[in-house]
Amino acid sequence: MTRHFILLVLAVCSTADSWAQEAQETPTFDRSVKIAENFEAVIQRTEQDRAVAEKLASLQRKTGRRPNILWLVVDDMGYGDPGCYGGGTLVGAATPNIDKLAAEGLKLTSCYSQQTCTPTRSAILTGRLPVRTGLIRPILAGDQITANPWADEVSLPKLLSDAGYFTLLTGKWHVGESKGMRPHDIGFDEYYGYYPAQKEISQRVDVRRFPGLVLNPERLAAFEAVGPAAHLAHGFKGGETNELQQIKSTDDMGKADEVLADFTIKRIKELADGELPFFIEHCFMKVHCDNFAHPDHAGKSEAKYPYKDGIHEVDAHVGAILKALDEAGVLENTLVFLTSDNGPQMDGWPDAGYTPFRGAKGTTWEGGVRVPGIAYWKGMIAPGRTNDGLFDLLDLFGVGLNLAGVSNDKLPANKYYDFIDQTSFLLADDGQSKREAVYFWWGKELMACRMREYKVHLKVILAEAPHMHIDLATVRDVGLAPWFFNLYLDPKEEMTVGHRLDPWMATVTGKLKAHGATFRKYPPKNIGL
Amino acid sequence: MTRHFILLVLAVCSTADSWAQEAQETPTFDRSVKIAENFEAVIQRTEQDRAVAEKLASLQRKTGRRPNILWLVVDDMGYGDPGCYGGGTLVGAATPNIDKLAAEGLKLTSCYSQQTCTPTRSAILTGRLPVRTGLIRPILAGDQITANPWADEVSLPKLLSDAGYFTLLTGKWHVGESKGMRPHDIGFDEYYGYYPAQKEISQRVDVRRFPGLVLNPERLAAFEAVGPAAHLAHGFKGGETNELQQIKSTDDMGKADEVLADFTIKRIKELADGELPFFIEHCFMKVHCDNFAHPDHAGKSEAKYPYKDGIHEVDAHVGAILKALDEAGVLENTLVFLTSDNGPQMDGWPDAGYTPFRGAKGTTWEGGVRVPGIAYWKGMIAPGRTNDGLFDLLDLFGVGLNLAGVSNDKLPANKYYDFIDQTSFLLADDGQSKREAVYFWWGKELMACRMREYKVHLKVILAEAPHMHIDLATVRDVGLAPWFFNLYLDPKEEMTVGHRLDPWMATVTGKLKAHGATFRKYPPKNIGL
Repeated sequence: MTRHFILLVLAVCSTADSWAQEAQETPTFDRSVKIAENFEAVIQRTEQDRAVAEKLASLQRKTGRRPNILWLVVDDMGYGDPGCYGGGTLVGAATPNIDKLAAEGLKLTSCYSQQTCTPTRSAILTGRLPVRTGLIRPILAGDQITANPWADEVSLPKLLSDAGYFTLLTGKWHVGESKGMRPHDIGFDEYYGYYPAQKEISQRVDVRRFPGLVLNPERLAAFEAVGPAAHLAHGFKGGETNELQQIKSTDDMGKADEVLADFTIKRIKELADGELPFFIEHCFMKVHCDNFAHPDHAGKSEAKYPYKDGIHEVDAHVGAILKALDEAGVLENTLVFLTSDNGPQMDGWPDAGYTPFRGAKGTTWEGGVRVPGIAYWKGMIAPGRTNDGLFDLLDLFGVGLNLAGVSNDKLPANKYYDFIDQTSFLLADDGQSKREAVYFWWGKELMACRMREYKVHLKVILAEAPHMHIDLATVRDVGLAPWFFNLYLDPKEEMTVGHRLDPWMATVTGKLKAHGATFRKYPPKNIGL
Repeated sequence: MTRHFILLVLAVCSTADSWAQEAQETPTFDRSVKIAENFEAVIQRTEQDRAVAEKLASLQRKTGRRPNILWLVVDDMGYGDPGCYGGGTLVGAATPNIDKLAAEGLKLTSCYSQQTCTPTRSAILTGRLPVRTGLIRPILAGDQITANPWADEVSLPKLLSDAGYFTLLTGKWHVGESKGMRPHDIGFDEYYGYYPAQKEISQRVDVRRFPGLVLNPERLAAFEAVGPAAHLAHGFKGGETNELQQIKSTDDMGKADEVLADFTIKRIKELADGELPFFIEHCFMKVHCDNFAHPDHAGKSEAKYPYKDGIHEVDAHVGAILKALDEAGVLENTLVFLTSDNGPQMDGWPDAGYTPFRGAKGTTWEGGVRVPGIAYWKGMIAPGRTNDGLFDLLDLFGVGLNLAGVSNDKLPANKYYDFIDQTSFLLADDGQSKREAVYFWWGKELMACRMREYKVHLKVILAEAPHMHIDLATVRDVGLAPWFFNLYLDPKEEMTVGHRLDPWMATVTGKLKAHGATFRKYPPKNIGL
């Protein structure tokens, strides 16, 4: 732990004890309670939990097995990109399949990711905030990390595999590509995909954008020697890892998601015929800049830009994967959850996504962290629900454990867990969220907290470029008081309502401080990033 | 016509003739053609028109009468307020009835109003841009107008009344409250409502906001003598006008929309039993600042602010009015169109609406002019359509004429008409827009033009306050080149793409110039505003 970080955490925690004391005496609007010292506090909904447990037990009596779990994680898709979130046709790329999923399932309007890729992807598999696991950003070629951050983490795929699931990750990984950090090293039974992000692979073949690299054999050779992998990998837990075809052109890159979707569809059919329930995390390569349209989708979006054609393609794959579940006869025994790993990356503009909110990927403004979140389960989730209750993608960890019947006892008591089991929120007919707050980190900086419709910022990220450029942003302390927004009145976070609403601001800030205080007993892991 | 205005129009038109010449020789992406010198050019869709004409004829053979027309005009509701446009639950006020209308009808994502109230309301009743009719802003107490702008206009309610319709306007008027300019003077058979906007009425009873007025008897008396009317008026064409109850408190104001909805519901039932088809324009008082919650709706929105409770109430009235159509047996013989007269007025913030776009009411940014537009007609409009084709609320005039069987011959040849008959766009199963461009005016200033997904700005409105305040904005010329946005890539109008797309920019700017050229032969009416 760096000295800087220790100071920050201590500063945040400085009044946490006294706050905790006061919380006993002063009413606040915090409805959550601690279920264990090392778990995030939960809004208890006993009746809702009971009803859903009975619903699940009833289904299991019918099917004779645990339900399947399928996550569809789109890369860098903005909150506003799908039609059901206000985009689609409006922004030149209709998304009929995603919209159908929402119309026939539960559309979350306050679903939160971390502000970039690696943090979100690691958080949903560990149930822990990136600042705790050390996975605060991609581990890049050249990074001298001091420990394998996965070594002592108990991952969801490991827990599910131990509980009798077949676990598969298809597609983008981006949470460490060295041995010991690959999907099939950290718990997945099988991996089929690309380790890095799309742009990291494509840059070495993209002569239009990077002629200085691609056309220079010497530099290209050096880059290939140290740069991220460009091949499709197929690996098995404790078994072989094969390097399949390499991305040799931007055309290859454009077709990568078809290769991945075909694989997931094939495996769904095989696994549905097998003995074990399955957990599949399907991670799209699209729509992370830079985008290259698949020939079947090029120009098919109304906007006719590669990003938008990518949305068109992703939507088509979503439809095909759902159709595969149906044809395999497991649609009624599979929870599907579709999301994005963070807000749109505006650096790719004009070929980029859309969020109606302030900021973009790489920031803790809503534009960076509020993402689509759609839960679909035929027969188990009532169609047409929309709910603004808080859902952190971390909570997918808890939902996974619940569906697989894995008890919290399987988790080490010396680690702090940030997820909440939100199974009953997703599955009850009028399910309500059990999460009272979402905490926003930017690397090792604790930035902000949302509680109900309020959001408090201790630090903000502002662009040093005309628009929100992930690599040209700076972190700044706010002024005299935290910046405090009512997101119902001001979803764009433009006008603070602090000071007028002192009791609310005190409650939210107090919640944030209590969160900071968890780092005293459960210090964050430092891997040298 | 002021000298300033003449200069502007001539400047705009200066190259219009040469442009028109070039248009014959140089291909552009303008698909529209002139159907008459004094009508806006139209994208011809002969087959679509034919199919819809047959569909309408078939319905008329069944019902034995022309279809009814019902417009629901919400005041100042933002594009983002309804759930089906991305708001609703997200912004603390769910809109289940409006969402249902959209899900079972046609949701337009590029539906345009004028930038404020009076211009929109007059445009949809005259089929002409406000700059042509002179109705560019409310006629306020103290305004010395030189002519009644309505005197030589041929209004839609007059044309429909002549064609055998019963025509009724319920609710807010705001397009002149002197004799000769009231709804029942300009063509409506009946009027039941309030002449001014909500805030104009409520200010004289709102002791919280205006103690200096309300608590000062002398000033209040003077204000009441010259200020806008505060009573409910009930008038008949060529008959009496009765002043019904007066708004005497903010509580009365809060209940005004219930009074209006009850009346429309009563009249729907009566008119459905009558001999004539009906045209009803129902104009809500809400959600124009300042808002006062009806007791049945106070605190019923999730956000619990009066504006949001107002959205909750408006949505409930929409549901009740639709139910009344159903119960009266005319749901399958009535075109319903729901919209707002402009973007949200942000001056009321924190009690204000939401648009995901740049700007707000009073500007020609998308935030000021892009509004919800939902067409619903059971059995005649295929459910679940969303379309981004251009629709100007002016086009409602053309749809009204078409449904009532009124020919364009009834319109004077010496006036220019800006509407397009978009009946087939709304009613065909895969209907496409017949409008190639929308022109944006701000008073007498020609500001901008949208064509397909491109929008060009010659002048822009920028706020002189921290946020977009209608009374603290300034109009400025753009710099070296028009500001040119691709709204699919940049719906927030942040980053111009001009110069890279010269042929497009030339086409859109040429279209705008041709529009300006229409003012030579058909000069705008000047009423001294």
